Amino acid sequence: MSYNGISTAILQRLPIYLGYLKALPDGAPDNISATAIAAALGTGEVQVRKDLASVSNAGKPKIGYITADLIDELEEFLGYKDTNDAVLVGAGRLGRALLEYEGFKAYGLNIVMAFDVDERATGKTSTGKSVFPLSKLENLCKRMNVKIGIITVPASAAQGVCDLMIKNGILAIWNFAPVHLDVPSNILVRSENMAASLAMLSGHLAKKLFDK
Amino acid sequence: MSYNGISTAILQRLPIYLGYLKALPDGAPDNISATAIAAALGTGEVQVRKDLASVSNAGKPKIGYITADLIDELEEFLGYKDTNDAVLVGAGRLGRALLEYEGFKAYGLNIVMAFDVDERATGKTSTGKSVFPLSKLENLCKRMNVKIGIITVPASAAQGVCDLMIKNGILAIWNFAPVHLDVPSNILVRSENMAASLAMLSGHLAKKLFDK
Repeated sequence: MSYNGISTAILQRLPIYLGYLKALPDGAPDNISATAIAAALGTGEVQVRKDLASVSNAGKPKIGYITADLIDELEEFLGYKDTNDAVLVGAGRLGRALLEYEGFKAYGLNIVMAFDVDERATGKTSTGKSVFPLSKLENLCKRMNVKIGIITVPASAAQGVCDLMIKNGILAIWNFAPVHLDVPSNILVRSENMAASLAMLSGHLAKKLFDK
Repeated sequence: MSYNGISTAILQRLPIYLGYLKALPDGAPDNISATAIAAALGTGEVQVRKDLASVSNAGKPKIGYITADLIDELEEFLGYKDTNDAVLVGAGRLGRALLEYEGFKAYGLNIVMAFDVDERATGKTSTGKSVFPLSKLENLCKRMNVKIGIITVPASAAQGVCDLMIKNGILAIWNFAPVHLDVPSNILVRSENMAASLAMLSGHLAKKLFDK
């Protein structure tokens, strides 16, 4: 998979570089080399150089990159500077947690409202976001021209919600339901597989504790 | 990467099968074939058969699997049936959202308490979970024999927290900070790269809207 000619693998690493650069102490030099970044992150210098070349052509021999400029270019490239509105469907525990979480704004995502089939879940959240009945999605999504949809419904309902979103103009879907979604080729689905993460953590633990 | 001889790729797919099986309607037959699962998930039959073979040897020609048994075996294998306690460090917005989210219990994870360097962040959350000063981590982690640590601090603080956790007996780390963590080989780190997901969504969007 790739977008703008950049592979997913590179795209996964760019936020890591950005996180590292933003975490540099105030007294750090103004410039930084690919070598220094590679050493700090325990990765290969050639890879760092190649990855950064897809974002910036300002790297110079001996000097490296001007840190502030590179941060700027990374944020620009990763789309964190533009804010995209999103709607969320499934205002259960996970959905509400995401809806009330303000931290996505730093990454250019603003969840403007949520929907739920259960009327009891509708109303305002503690942070003032609205949860509407799912029947209002069509009207509101189109009216507000929202292009990103977040799915936090149970697996059994996810494909239906996905289809409804696409029908109403959603182009990119962030899926938290542990299920495969069928979509047309012009739609991007990005799934978070937290269930797999948790299985890995507990599997590692079981193995370590058993080994003793 | 692998654990118990199972590759990460397989492990990523197992929760998808589980999600699909659990979402089958009440009136569905008692048994299901690898062919049917593959067709429903839009994936290859051979892969499904191979993946499930690492979890169950109950699949029979023509009959397939008894659905309820396969669900049971998947949950057992993925460690969702045992509950592991975890501590979380970094009670900011994301940390609090995870701490108050009860849904991880279904996947065998129970976040028992959190820590923060900022005294103002300490106290009880709305769901009654405690946030302690970070200085108490050593004592509490060891006393309660917690083996899983969740990191939700800024990137600049993540390695320090990681080291502190390992020093106090943590064996598996779920990292939400956008940063690479250096750990000894007996420690598992599983990083969630939500920043990359968001970059992918906005990148896709920018491209689609630009194309028009």
